[in-house]
Amino acid sequence: MRRDARPAEVDQVIAAIEASGARPARLAREGRILIGILGGEAAAETARWEALPGVEALLPLTTPFPLASREWQPQPTVVRLPGGLDIGDGGLIVMAGPCAIEDEAQVLATAHAVRAAGATVFRAGVWKPRTSPYAFQGVGEPGLALLARVRAETGLRVITEALDVEGLARVAEAVDIVQIGSRSMQNYALLRAAGRIGRPVLLKRGASATVTELLLSAEYILAAGNPDVILCERGIRGFDHSTRNTLDLSAIPVVKHLSHLPIIADPSHGTGHRHLVPAMARAAVAAGADGLMVEVHPDPDRALSDGEQSLDPAAFATLMREVKAVATALGRPVIAPDRVAVGA
Amino acid sequence: MRRDARPAEVDQVIAAIEASGARPARLAREGRILIGILGGEAAAETARWEALPGVEALLPLTTPFPLASREWQPQPTVVRLPGGLDIGDGGLIVMAGPCAIEDEAQVLATAHAVRAAGATVFRAGVWKPRTSPYAFQGVGEPGLALLARVRAETGLRVITEALDVEGLARVAEAVDIVQIGSRSMQNYALLRAAGRIGRPVLLKRGASATVTELLLSAEYILAAGNPDVILCERGIRGFDHSTRNTLDLSAIPVVKHLSHLPIIADPSHGTGHRHLVPAMARAAVAAGADGLMVEVHPDPDRALSDGEQSLDPAAFATLMREVKAVATALGRPVIAPDRVAVGA
Amino acid sequence: MRRDARPAEVDQVIAAIEASGARPARLAREGRILIGILGGEAAAETARWEALPGVEALLPLTTPFPLASREWQPQPTVVRLPGGLDIGDGGLIVMAGPCAIEDEAQVLATAHAVRAAGATVFRAGVWKPRTSPYAFQGVGEPGLALLARVRAETGLRVITEALDVEGLARVAEAVDIVQIGSRSMQNYALLRAAGRIGRPVLLKRGASATVTELLLSAEYILAAGNPDVILCERGIRGFDHSTRNTLDLSAIPVVKHLSHLPIIADPSHGTGHRHLVPAMARAAVAAGADGLMVEVHPDPDRALSDGEQSLDPAAFATLMREVKAVATALGRPVIAPDRVAVGA
Amino acid sequence: MRRDARPAEVDQVIAAIEASGARPARLAREGRILIGILGGEAAAETARWEALPGVEALLPLTTPFPLASREWQPQPTVVRLPGGLDIGDGGLIVMAGPCAIEDEAQVLATAHAVRAAGATVFRAGVWKPRTSPYAFQGVGEPGLALLARVRAETGLRVITEALDVEGLARVAEAVDIVQIGSRSMQNYALLRAAGRIGRPVLLKRGASATVTELLLSAEYILAAGNPDVILCERGIRGFDHSTRNTLDLSAIPVVKHLSHLPIIADPSHGTGHRHLVPAMARAAVAAGADGLMVEVHPDPDRALSDGEQSLDPAAFATLMREVKAVATALGRPVIAPDRVAVGA
Repeated sequence: MRRDARPAEVDQVIAAIEASGARPARLAREGRILIGILGGEAAAETARWEALPGVEALLPLTTPFPLASREWQPQPTVVRLPGGLDIGDGGLIVMAGPCAIEDEAQVLATAHAVRAAGATVFRAGVWKPRTSPYAFQGVGEPGLALLARVRAETGLRVITEALDVEGLARVAEAVDIVQIGSRSMQNYALLRAAGRIGRPVLLKRGASATVTELLLSAEYILAAGNPDVILCERGIRGFDHSTRNTLDLSAIPVVKHLSHLPIIADPSHGTGHRHLVPAMARAAVAAGADGLMVEVHPDPDRALSDGEQSLDPAAFATLMREVKAVATALGRPVIAPDRVAVGA
Repeated sequence: MRRDARPAEVDQVIAAIEASGARPARLAREGRILIGILGGEAAAETARWEALPGVEALLPLTTPFPLASREWQPQPTVVRLPGGLDIGDGGLIVMAGPCAIEDEAQVLATAHAVRAAGATVFRAGVWKPRTSPYAFQGVGEPGLALLARVRAETGLRVITEALDVEGLARVAEAVDIVQIGSRSMQNYALLRAAGRIGRPVLLKRGASATVTELLLSAEYILAAGNPDVILCERGIRGFDHSTRNTLDLSAIPVVKHLSHLPIIADPSHGTGHRHLVPAMARAAVAAGADGLMVEVHPDPDRALSDGEQSLDPAAFATLMREVKAVATALGRPVIAPDRVAVGA
Repeated sequence: MRRDARPAEVDQVIAAIEASGARPARLAREGRILIGILGGEAAAETARWEALPGVEALLPLTTPFPLASREWQPQPTVVRLPGGLDIGDGGLIVMAGPCAIEDEAQVLATAHAVRAAGATVFRAGVWKPRTSPYAFQGVGEPGLALLARVRAETGLRVITEALDVEGLARVAEAVDIVQIGSRSMQNYALLRAAGRIGRPVLLKRGASATVTELLLSAEYILAAGNPDVILCERGIRGFDHSTRNTLDLSAIPVVKHLSHLPIIADPSHGTGHRHLVPAMARAAVAAGADGLMVEVHPDPDRALSDGEQSLDPAAFATLMREVKAVATALGRPVIAPDRVAVGA
Repeated sequence: MRRDARPAEVDQVIAAIEASGARPARLAREGRILIGILGGEAAAETARWEALPGVEALLPLTTPFPLASREWQPQPTVVRLPGGLDIGDGGLIVMAGPCAIEDEAQVLATAHAVRAAGATVFRAGVWKPRTSPYAFQGVGEPGLALLARVRAETGLRVITEALDVEGLARVAEAVDIVQIGSRSMQNYALLRAAGRIGRPVLLKRGASATVTELLLSAEYILAAGNPDVILCERGIRGFDHSTRNTLDLSAIPVVKHLSHLPIIADPSHGTGHRHLVPAMARAAVAAGADGLMVEVHPDPDRALSDGEQSLDPAAFATLMREVKAVATALGRPVIAPDRVAVGA
């Protein structure tokens, strides 16, 4: 729009974009309003748009993911959770908990332990995506009530994964952050639905997705109306099976360069072996991750899933001390659980 | 079961497995009945099962995908389509058509052209999974009516992709084979639903899935009750971007070695460049593929999606002559479209 | 050069290029002479070159590998071995033999067996590149005499690998084709030396080399003066360990599109398992490979190296019948060993 | 050996191993002497060895790389350079300098700048391995004299790459550490020669080498008699071309778990883009790397090679401040250049 474009003119352009079947995206930058024409075929009709009052010029998009791009929004997105927990503001957030909910005792013991060590978000799988149809698929629905209890008892925020559109609504009601897992990164029906749930979404990178593809999947959620997307690097498929996946920490500075969205790292899935988790957790923080997601189990060797990559509470407490030291050295605060009100 | 086990004893074991929460799978092999206990935790209780009348011994499973495994079913699965079209019986089936349905003229012209060249199944995307939310997402619902018209006019069988559980039912009603795409290979809700639709399913390998993971995804469909699964190799993610994907033809003999399920190859997505498609189509047939899926467009340079990898009808006709020559040389018949009754 | 450039003018330009420190490459195309300026910094001095008599214009190179590129030499390179064996002329050449020479009996038995089945080149490792310093490193020097004996007794051409510059001269004296192995694809000292040996060179693709990098390595040999380079696809490193490597057959049509050099495939290293070799051998031929390299051992289970991927003579004979059928179906002759004179 | 074995008995066993054609390796562990039989076939003859006086038992090797393995040598190897510079003792060593030597001014300016910022080793390519035969191949021999001058003027230790056996001797004479580059990781002739030069060797991981293969290549150098091997992670080949390579930092804790050898990281080649280098340098230190190798150029945009990934001196100084902060936070000293005597 021209610098002197009037609000009514801006509204008229937005209405015209909607009428054309495309989606308008409004941005303010350097005292000037930019309106994106996303999707549809009308974007190609230069003359049509340049004829509208207040329009200065129609420019081609220089990024495939305008809503996720730092080019259109230079300042970082901060995802605000209830209880004063912000993700993406420079502080470090740690999410921890078991791969899967097994029973009440396991959940509560782990939650108290990770809170004591400094985690602020509790993670635990309710429905689990499993490679084999015969593997433990999660406790399902009753797990949501256990998460609610963790929140009430410990003040921790909670996150769990939604596997499908149907489960998404139930999960969104029950938790503070909804996780879209690695295998679902290109489940577009799920991404579109996640764009309409009114809850922050943690989007994990697919095992062979490029960073551009990750940002395009985030764009699905953003374009459907949900601005609160947190990305997660959790390892890509590699040829060296000395680790379960290859944790691609360079994705963190690459995302920071291209996008305003926060990004965290999951060194548990990223390595698959508990003795490698602390080093990669420290490295992720040093690389600039806004947070960590770490698997912790009270008795890893008896875990129903992913025990090999889970830390016990003592090892997790050591990890927390180390990552705090790294974050502090780089001038980054670590958000402590006492910032989170119990029962909030 | 013991060799002399009576039918009532077999039924009793099956009922006991069901009562335990597991799924029974009955197989006959070398004059003896084997009953698999799939899932659940009761499988570990050796004494419980060995106490049942007629049971000889409880053996551990030696394969993670018993229903898909050649170990449990040595003879190949033949998927029978209406009109006498069999997939997996040694013959070669060719599926061809545009990446996406654009309009009636494009669909019918392509269908007649690929039939004339010898294809027996028509492929065309109705809903398209696209990396970008702003890319053409397919014509949707009206596309199904066009596929019905192709079937009526040409006698070709039709296949299209279902992206989600909701769409699956509608697709299953309208087509002969339902495709589960590469990005959905580990969409377990979709796989389970595909196990209950009563239609053959074409399951494409994920871009970074191992063959074992592909077979485990097939196992989800088989375990849900649908025995008609056709696998498809369509290229894995590689480092050399001179091709869009790396078509891993060794997956064909690996699958044949491990499983009784038929497998076809998609050299269009597997290479991403039309000048590479014929060579890889010939190679796939020589490697033992039960069929091919090839993108054909009447005017590839104007295609709304994947034009770069689509053949025009003349190039497709040449490809068909070449693959027939290879199949014939290896003693394999090529199923011709006149075997398929018009209006069947 | 201008169409009417005189030979003396051409010679003058070539001399000027040499004087500048660059390497001249002379090509004739469509009745016009092109002279490449390869390497050096003088290529950038447009005015200098355009001032020379007979020069029409200085054009930028459009390919990074002008000598290997089909753009500069549209017709295929045919590598001619003694005894009337041509590689790259449309016929199919099969190289077969054990991974490593073990003893005289093994070598001669294998050589006679592969000749009887239709191979024309005998392969056998004399010095072996082994991942572990403690693994069998090959019989060394005496192996060369055994290869000479194979040639005299059977009329087969022979090929073996040279591991370093020092061994290259000895190997070049003793064999018909010198192999540069996968691990040496970017051993530039070895490539340059291979450019000066006056023997055909088989250059294997590195485990994570792109096709462009393979052609640039070939360019090292070509630029050093040896035009007889045969490429070999032998599998790239992949994430699915159900095969030892991922045989990337699409490299064959990609190379044919970009280059005039012949290319063969090695399904033995490409799969690592003997039961997968025949399917991939057939596929390679169908994809357009100019030849095959196959490991054959009289007693694979007792081989000192790579027995798991070696065929026994009977399996190799079956493979030969199949690849002949495929080649014949595609109008390609299979070069038979009786074309090769014994003792030639 | 038995706990009470006499020295003469130990010597006798060692002599017997040598006589058998194998290589003996002597280790002391928990008050007991172990003697490895490396290579050869005699290791299988249990009775032969157990009959020798003082021998308690012949045990199978449990690691493929006994000399590199932490199992045989639990304490870390510390590589000691002249002037009191130790690598692998817990401190952090930074190697920095241009990709390639261009001229005296560039070399000296960079050396003084990196020393001022805190680097202790100067890196600069004299002979460069280049993918294209037409790219700048390094200044060659005269570069060695410039490195000597850097050492004399600044007190920095110097490192450069040797490309072949011939160059190795000259490089070894001129520098403090000899680099074996990524493309040469499986150049076994070069590795064996590097085992005999009496200088520390920096061995870079190949672009598609597993950690096991890296350690087996180190084993070649160790087995040839050189205990001073430093490993280097410099990025593996990946599918996402938003970085030049995928820096696999998990290799650092994996190596630390398996081996006693020091390991450093090269975030310049590991990312290929200068804006990503600082984050990955910090991450490597946090992951436990014993050092860094960073490309610095006085004017990166005019560098003759790899300018895109080179930092200018100011950016390098910032990087040094950040990595020192991370190292200090984790209780690790950063070795400062004033520990290194000028002219040492």
